[in-house]
Amino acid sequence: MTVTLHVCITCRAGQPVLEGEAVPGARLHAALTAEPAPEGVRIVPVECLSACSNGAAVALSAPGCWTYVYGQMSDADAPEILAGAAAYAATTDGIVPWRERVQIFRKRSLARIPPIG
Amino acid sequence: MTVTLHVCITCRAGQPVLEGEAVPGARLHAALTAEPAPEGVRIVPVECLSACSNGAAVALSAPGCWTYVYGQMSDADAPEILAGAAAYAATTDGIVPWRERVQIFRKRSLARIPPIG
Repeated sequence: MTVTLHVCITCRAGQPVLEGEAVPGARLHAALTAEPAPEGVRIVPVECLSACSNGAAVALSAPGCWTYVYGQMSDADAPEILAGAAAYAATTDGIVPWRERVQIFRKRSLARIPPIG
Repeated sequence: MTVTLHVCITCRAGQPVLEGEAVPGARLHAALTAEPAPEGVRIVPVECLSACSNGAAVALSAPGCWTYVYGQMSDADAPEILAGAAAYAATTDGIVPWRERVQIFRKRSLARIPPIG
């Protein structure tokens, strides 16, 4: 299954940003795309996930699957986000068993949405 | 277009709940379904939208559309949620112009997610 990891690249994560400096969302996207994506994971930048007070935010979605949104992510979390995305891609419904879920996904969930249709 | 309004019916919205008393999510669902749903809107209860610290939560989704998640909703917000859901159902992509968006949706967004695919 190919899943999509949307990454908000405009997120300021509530921090002041100096002119010419990349915002936290853009830094997170850069960290996530520094290495080849895990198998079955497509990383797509997006302008604003409307989770501004809980940014930086990412979302995992795939046809027929539950969608998950996570907040308070930083570039330091990139390896764990990618591991979590790979685990999500290995499911058929988007639901990774709790014990197998990466720690940051357990603790920083903003929302999950049932399959659309 | 038929859209889905998911309503978390297990949400406690951070409040203590007395035994035998309906939780805030269940009360919200009851208020939303007290009248016939707006045209094109399907109201579906769901157990946990994983937005527990920002509950009660609802989500609007439809095939090919942006998904929106809103938090801090209560049964008193039911009429405005239904108006917002009707406006969402009248779009082709899920994006209701800002000025036409109901106030509670402007102020209590938890996240939005691009169309899945």
